[in-house]
Amino acid sequence: MYFAGIDLGGTNIAAGIVDENGKMYEDMSIPTGAQRDYTEIVKDMAGLVETLCKNMKINPNDLKGVGIGCPGSIDNENGVCEYSNNINMKHAKIAEEFRKYIDVPVNIENDANAAAFGEYEINAKGSKSFVFITLGTGVGGGVIINGEIFRGFNGVGAELGHSVIEMDGEECTCGRKGCWEAYASVTALIRQTKKAMEEDKDSLMHKIAEDEGKVNGKVAFLAAKKGDKSGQKVVDAYFKYIAEGLANVVNTFQPEQVVLGGSISKEGDYLLNPVKNLVEKMDYNRYMPKAEIKIATLFGDAGIIGAALAAKNKIK
Amino acid sequence: MYFAGIDLGGTNIAAGIVDENGKMYEDMSIPTGAQRDYTEIVKDMAGLVETLCKNMKINPNDLKGVGIGCPGSIDNENGVCEYSNNINMKHAKIAEEFRKYIDVPVNIENDANAAAFGEYEINAKGSKSFVFITLGTGVGGGVIINGEIFRGFNGVGAELGHSVIEMDGEECTCGRKGCWEAYASVTALIRQTKKAMEEDKDSLMHKIAEDEGKVNGKVAFLAAKKGDKSGQKVVDAYFKYIAEGLANVVNTFQPEQVVLGGSISKEGDYLLNPVKNLVEKMDYNRYMPKAEIKIATLFGDAGIIGAALAAKNKIK
Repeated sequence: MYFAGIDLGGTNIAAGIVDENGKMYEDMSIPTGAQRDYTEIVKDMAGLVETLCKNMKINPNDLKGVGIGCPGSIDNENGVCEYSNNINMKHAKIAEEFRKYIDVPVNIENDANAAAFGEYEINAKGSKSFVFITLGTGVGGGVIINGEIFRGFNGVGAELGHSVIEMDGEECTCGRKGCWEAYASVTALIRQTKKAMEEDKDSLMHKIAEDEGKVNGKVAFLAAKKGDKSGQKVVDAYFKYIAEGLANVVNTFQPEQVVLGGSISKEGDYLLNPVKNLVEKMDYNRYMPKAEIKIATLFGDAGIIGAALAAKNKIK
Repeated sequence: MYFAGIDLGGTNIAAGIVDENGKMYEDMSIPTGAQRDYTEIVKDMAGLVETLCKNMKINPNDLKGVGIGCPGSIDNENGVCEYSNNINMKHAKIAEEFRKYIDVPVNIENDANAAAFGEYEINAKGSKSFVFITLGTGVGGGVIINGEIFRGFNGVGAELGHSVIEMDGEECTCGRKGCWEAYASVTALIRQTKKAMEEDKDSLMHKIAEDEGKVNGKVAFLAAKKGDKSGQKVVDAYFKYIAEGLANVVNTFQPEQVVLGGSISKEGDYLLNPVKNLVEKMDYNRYMPKAEIKIATLFGDAGIIGAALAAKNKIK
């Protein structure tokens, strides 16, 4: 039983063929061309799925379903992306359009929700409550309650990166000031790194940034690991930013598991252990079993696998 | 079909007899004596229910169930209060103890969850997602998803007052700094009022506080309504504090309805309208139907009615 999963991003469309257990057989990605009309993008998504099916020698119309993870505000029931600012879409009838090419059930989820569902199905199936956080360009969230994606009544729920942790703080892309995303995203880390570099001209971060070709999310981490004090200060502050928002998530949901994904989560235990120690101290719960905080395992595949399995879950 | 609902507070035990539709027939309250052994408190709760039943000429053992709303960390499954700091309880086997006196099914909920369930059942039944916020001595929260109280996996979820909105901000009773509760509770409002009074010796707030006998949660509101500038500044800042946390709740849950209760919610539209305007601007959702923000209607009875109806819901 095969499903196609599509992770529609601002830069690339990634897709794969996934079986009912979440095993991925074939995957591929192509550029999104995000500024084109959405019908063009959908045509490319369908073409990509057709290519994958051809490679696997299956008929696209024999797929049990297609799942699409899409950034923005999603009307899951009708398969519509009501709005996305990463991709040029307003009231884009993605499911209807897609079925012009491949006529199988199509399910659309917010991309962070799809990734959350992938991590849940593969690593935490059976958890009564589960939260996934992506620490990437932004901070995204997905919440799974009793095995179902929690979308809020309008489909826009679980925007966990857009909770203010510092009133009137740093500007956020959403229009608020002081959102968790504005402190704990990689974008924020790069801003924090640049500021620290300006303040310490002797920091090892300058040399590392030169080697990396730019100031990226790794610079402060690499410097800290080599004993650079300014790098360590950036990293310590960044851990605290992650922890403050994460403790808010824990106090709100007390989920059985919280999984951290996104590019920065590849730091693994180096990031996880200090963040866990900080959250432990901020956890309101002192007397009951604790939420388990872990690093994601699917990384880039979470979106594809999660979209496919969410389609399976919706169709059943 | 009758249930008893008990709202166990740090100061008083309030109880009532409630039918299956949430109509309350008889209610009464007695002092808690919070520092006594919990077995003594439970004995008094049972006695209170017996008195109420006697007044209604029903046999306590004919009650379909008893619901208790209790502050602290609750093990709902086993009817145990694992910890409460308002009342002297650690691993208090409330349900077991209560049934020594009245042998009917007993269901225990966190007090804010019970109140949330009451407001939900009476005012929002059928909402797919519902959040209740109490703005009182503290800031409490209750979340109802698909008609069920959301407790988190360990029963301590939905502590919405203990999300930080200002990193390293005001000290909170929970040990963190900068929690929503430390800005938006009545306790916080009183602190903010006192500070403004110190800074403005000519403010009308001094006269009002004298009339009230103390600085309470009404002083700044009364002054603002009479045109006092410093009072207005306190109230405006307080509205913003409420709104920042409320926008976080909306962006997290996108609930169909958010209901504000607790003593300060009695300000009604005077509080609701400016808070709604502020939240509107901070809402991540711009393109889908909006969460409706309302003032509670049950007030003091929400805890009793909610506890009773949660018992009904659990038993069914």
